[in-house]
Amino acid sequence: MELNNSSPKIALICVGSELLRGKINTHASYLARRLASIGLALNEEHTVSDEVADMTAALRRALDSSQIILVSGGLGPTFDDLTREAVAEATGRSLVLSQPFLRGIEKKFRRARYRRMPPANKRQAYLLQGARGLDNPVGTAPGQWLDLGSQILILLPGPPRELVPMVEKEILPRLRKRYGTSARAETHMHFVGVPESWVDEKVRPIMEHANRGSDQVQFTILAHLWLVDFDVFVTSRTQAQAERGVARIAQKIRRALGSFWYGSDADYPLEKVVGDHFRKCKMSLAVAESCTGGLLAAKLTSVAGSSDYFMEGSVTYANAAKMRCLDIPAEMLKKHGAVSEPVALAMAQNVRRRTSATCGLSITGIAGPGGGTRQKPVGLVYIGVAGKRTAFVRKYEFSGDRDTIRQRTVLAALDLLRKV
Amino acid sequence: MELNNSSPKIALICVGSELLRGKINTHASYLARRLASIGLALNEEHTVSDEVADMTAALRRALDSSQIILVSGGLGPTFDDLTREAVAEATGRSLVLSQPFLRGIEKKFRRARYRRMPPANKRQAYLLQGARGLDNPVGTAPGQWLDLGSQILILLPGPPRELVPMVEKEILPRLRKRYGTSARAETHMHFVGVPESWVDEKVRPIMEHANRGSDQVQFTILAHLWLVDFDVFVTSRTQAQAERGVARIAQKIRRALGSFWYGSDADYPLEKVVGDHFRKCKMSLAVAESCTGGLLAAKLTSVAGSSDYFMEGSVTYANAAKMRCLDIPAEMLKKHGAVSEPVALAMAQNVRRRTSATCGLSITGIAGPGGGTRQKPVGLVYIGVAGKRTAFVRKYEFSGDRDTIRQRTVLAALDLLRKV
Repeated sequence: MELNNSSPKIALICVGSELLRGKINTHASYLARRLASIGLALNEEHTVSDEVADMTAALRRALDSSQIILVSGGLGPTFDDLTREAVAEATGRSLVLSQPFLRGIEKKFRRARYRRMPPANKRQAYLLQGARGLDNPVGTAPGQWLDLGSQILILLPGPPRELVPMVEKEILPRLRKRYGTSARAETHMHFVGVPESWVDEKVRPIMEHANRGSDQVQFTILAHLWLVDFDVFVTSRTQAQAERGVARIAQKIRRALGSFWYGSDADYPLEKVVGDHFRKCKMSLAVAESCTGGLLAAKLTSVAGSSDYFMEGSVTYANAAKMRCLDIPAEMLKKHGAVSEPVALAMAQNVRRRTSATCGLSITGIAGPGGGTRQKPVGLVYIGVAGKRTAFVRKYEFSGDRDTIRQRTVLAALDLLRKV
Repeated sequence: MELNNSSPKIALICVGSELLRGKINTHASYLARRLASIGLALNEEHTVSDEVADMTAALRRALDSSQIILVSGGLGPTFDDLTREAVAEATGRSLVLSQPFLRGIEKKFRRARYRRMPPANKRQAYLLQGARGLDNPVGTAPGQWLDLGSQILILLPGPPRELVPMVEKEILPRLRKRYGTSARAETHMHFVGVPESWVDEKVRPIMEHANRGSDQVQFTILAHLWLVDFDVFVTSRTQAQAERGVARIAQKIRRALGSFWYGSDADYPLEKVVGDHFRKCKMSLAVAESCTGGLLAAKLTSVAGSSDYFMEGSVTYANAAKMRCLDIPAEMLKKHGAVSEPVALAMAQNVRRRTSATCGLSITGIAGPGGGTRQKPVGLVYIGVAGKRTAFVRKYEFSGDRDTIRQRTVLAALDLLRKV
């Protein structure tokens, strides 16, 4: 394949006042991932109201800066669906009634709803002059593909269940045919147990060096609690060269941050890494949770097929439950307290023994906001691990609110399991 | 108080290349709802990359069209955190090192992480000339409030767990003081077990009618799986009139959607409603989960103080665990299968008996993607409830992927517990 240095700039305009009134918009997320799969990248996203003036301003700006403009929403039959009119104004094109699409919409009403098309729906059959209508198998609003020579303007219906099939069936194949000419490779590196700033400190010199060659290198860092995702994208002259470039960078970064790195697949959450490890080693796992209250078990079982290795979870939130389910002696609880090293150890060993799992893991801690003392503050967590021959307890002190402490505890437990 | 008719135009600029590479952005949704609570409305949202040129263009445009410009993200310590620099360029202001904020960041590192501040973090202590720094209790990046006379430019950290507390504590009170001169009342109605489109259908005529009077009425709808949050805000001449307006609307909506409505407090998740109910009735709860794998227990224990009523959770993912922990006879599993009414009933009754809880709840189902059959498709779920005198099982058939089915099951279980 030839090198196409000028990757087209892509703008997404989401039309809909409801998106400015609390509704969560997933179009950018979905389109970004699907465009990346054909080597394209979303450059910006803009959400505007149903007002024609707002839409027209956004369209004009996008036409000034982008080669591909995707517009979602506002193709319905009602008075506040004015995307067609706004695009007509911004491009100076007229709207033309498409007889084939009008007949198609009428047919949909006859077939699916056993009644005549309401007059309002006739509006949906108007196409921009020169545009190609795109069939909508799920709804009545056709999409539109308007080729402006050096630019493409694409109108898509707003509901995800209508937009997604149209993108998959009509948009991606057309874009791939037109723009998929450059050689690209990428990697998605995942780290756990390390602050974002540490990753940055280590990768900065590597990335600066990588950008000096003939390859075009892009990267992003995304941190969440103790997880850091680092993505690298390389565009080069040939596919082989791009892949070599990515491999070289990945190797350097693994060398710098090796012990925190846990995987490089695009979609590879830590719980899946842990699960694959247990499956490969033919090991099984049982967990006993106090302060996380089932969150670790829920995470482990979020992976399809986790029944291969996950045997049982015990949520022993109350002391009575710790005694009954896990045979923790009342005097141990009294002497050391529920949040203590001996109790964590006994919980891990006993959940392992009772379930006959290869590995037992326990969590006991103070998630807050109440329950902390000077000796045992909110955020104090013990995680115990018991195997056939060895058993140990790790002590952690997390900061943050109840939810953060619980989430960090689960990540720390998964990180421990990864290293077992 | 006087009525303030000229509502300021508000633009949100979200900075972050990761938001254009698949990450779902919830800032617009959150801010729309919180701004509505003080009578303000989000006018547009714009997501741009980490590139200074992209940010600067978006900032210039927003400064041309809006009175309040909220910018999220890009305040971190790393090389791709360049929001400060872009705003400096767009506004023609210099960046000035703030000694108090520098000392504050150094202190955070000393206190929380037991180590010295990495040099990179010094960048976070630079404020725009004339800006007021806003304390960030969760992270290291301070926010900034830049008053430009007729406009306000606000910089916020990108991670929601840092942005939300700053908006609540610093931004909303300041905006309310500046723009909120009228009498307002609000209500936050929560519904469970109903699709968003039903709520929309029922509330639309009510809201259209409400808007005809002299009151200014705003509303937001936020739907997630089976939960719908509907917020109503009324601005009026007097406080009493605003409150009467809200009460009138709330009554109409409850009449239309009564059986799905579960509460109207601002922050009142379903798991807290259930917990309060159990506490009030001096009841206790034990749960046995199969396909949800601890998700229900995790939800119930996410509420601080849940140890008052939550006794124990049992994650019996494997059949062996169901037999050992919950005394489910092997022949029952063989005859009916693990996902069946008799097994759900026995699980609920046995987890109740073993823990001596007032109420036992069980979940068994097929979350997929594998494991479905013609008779027992993916999405089939049985939820069992056992009390002292009665016990029953409800059958559900959910659609969606593994995660959706698990989440919907947890909501359905909480909804059942609410009605027990």
